[in-house]
Amino acid sequence: MLKAKMPQLRDRLLFMASIVEQMIHNSIKSLVERDEDIARKVIDEDEPRVNDLEIEIDEMSINLLALYQPTASDLRTITMVMKINNDLERLGDHAVNIAERVILMIGKPPVKPLIDIPRMAEIAVEMVRNSLNSFTNSDPDLASKVRARDDTVDALRDQITRELVTYMISDPPTIERSLKLILITRDLERIADLATNIAEDVIFMVKGENIKHSW
Amino acid sequence: MLKAKMPQLRDRLLFMASIVEQMIHNSIKSLVERDEDIARKVIDEDEPRVNDLEIEIDEMSINLLALYQPTASDLRTITMVMKINNDLERLGDHAVNIAERVILMIGKPPVKPLIDIPRMAEIAVEMVRNSLNSFTNSDPDLASKVRARDDTVDALRDQITRELVTYMISDPPTIERSLKLILITRDLERIADLATNIAEDVIFMVKGENIKHSW
Repeated sequence: MLKAKMPQLRDRLLFMASIVEQMIHNSIKSLVERDEDIARKVIDEDEPRVNDLEIEIDEMSINLLALYQPTASDLRTITMVMKINNDLERLGDHAVNIAERVILMIGKPPVKPLIDIPRMAEIAVEMVRNSLNSFTNSDPDLASKVRARDDTVDALRDQITRELVTYMISDPPTIERSLKLILITRDLERIADLATNIAEDVIFMVKGENIKHSW
Repeated sequence: MLKAKMPQLRDRLLFMASIVEQMIHNSIKSLVERDEDIARKVIDEDEPRVNDLEIEIDEMSINLLALYQPTASDLRTITMVMKINNDLERLGDHAVNIAERVILMIGKPPVKPLIDIPRMAEIAVEMVRNSLNSFTNSDPDLASKVRARDDTVDALRDQITRELVTYMISDPPTIERSLKLILITRDLERIADLATNIAEDVIFMVKGENIKHSW
């Protein structure tokens, strides 16, 4: 029965999402604590698991489509799972990018105390979590809140970049390290963008099609 | 008949891909020629068309799944179209990012003659085109070639970044402009990554499942 399979699909997706959230969190933790082991774990342990889960969830989805030939709301839910699955794998890629940058920076003195980047990361992780919750609960209001948070992330990105450019100009030896921090804010920006995409898909799906999930 | 519908789906996807390729090409053209009109066209005209096409192709795909309940190879082809559709929309986003950065830079003197960035863009556009061709022709060899090109793009990214950091250090007034160029190389890197993702999906689909498209 398809009705019995849908919650299994949801649970695998949420399991994958929890790993990806942890990867983003830990990539920034490795930056703040200058801890190479944490960064390596994101790259060497978590990323392969996420890649395997992406393939597994894709296969589960295609099998459900092939075996049960679902229509209407189940069909939309499954195709949405496939989209989010793809997005989660990308989110994991960005956590890996951050961890790789951290490893390159760890031996060098910090440019400045890190306050705004961890804050930006915290908001981005919260956006990812809420975009998933808005999907599993078919909650367009929560999805709208995710979308609204994207402006805060963009504002933080601009503020952090301006500050780091000031450091670069006044103290050129910090240029390379500051640049790496700026690139980390771009990964966080893309993470927030991906969460926003998921939220927008949820709004489109729930409002436009008046769908409630069958799980 | 599904057999009659599949080529229509392919043609819409290829039409969207041609717009996206042009957007990437034009975003870099606007940088090289310092032409704000070209950049504005990418943002104001092309991007909304791509967003509309993404929705249209998604709807076409879901309708084919609902109406014809395809199995095996058609099912995989349609789900792959949905993935590539998503990727094309993201590719368009990166072209918009580049065009937006160009508009911010246009009034300021150039840091250096641009040779490597246009070359990096040319390779990235070629990768996008070939990844789509590898899909429509079920050609895993072409897909492997796309994947191999990603290293060239990463090497160019590193080379351009190193050179621009040298400018930043020796001539701090160029820091902001050099940073924008570095961020443009990151958009081009993501464009190449997305083309590589498409190519890897094609390899997985064609080799792993021994699929030939039915169009």
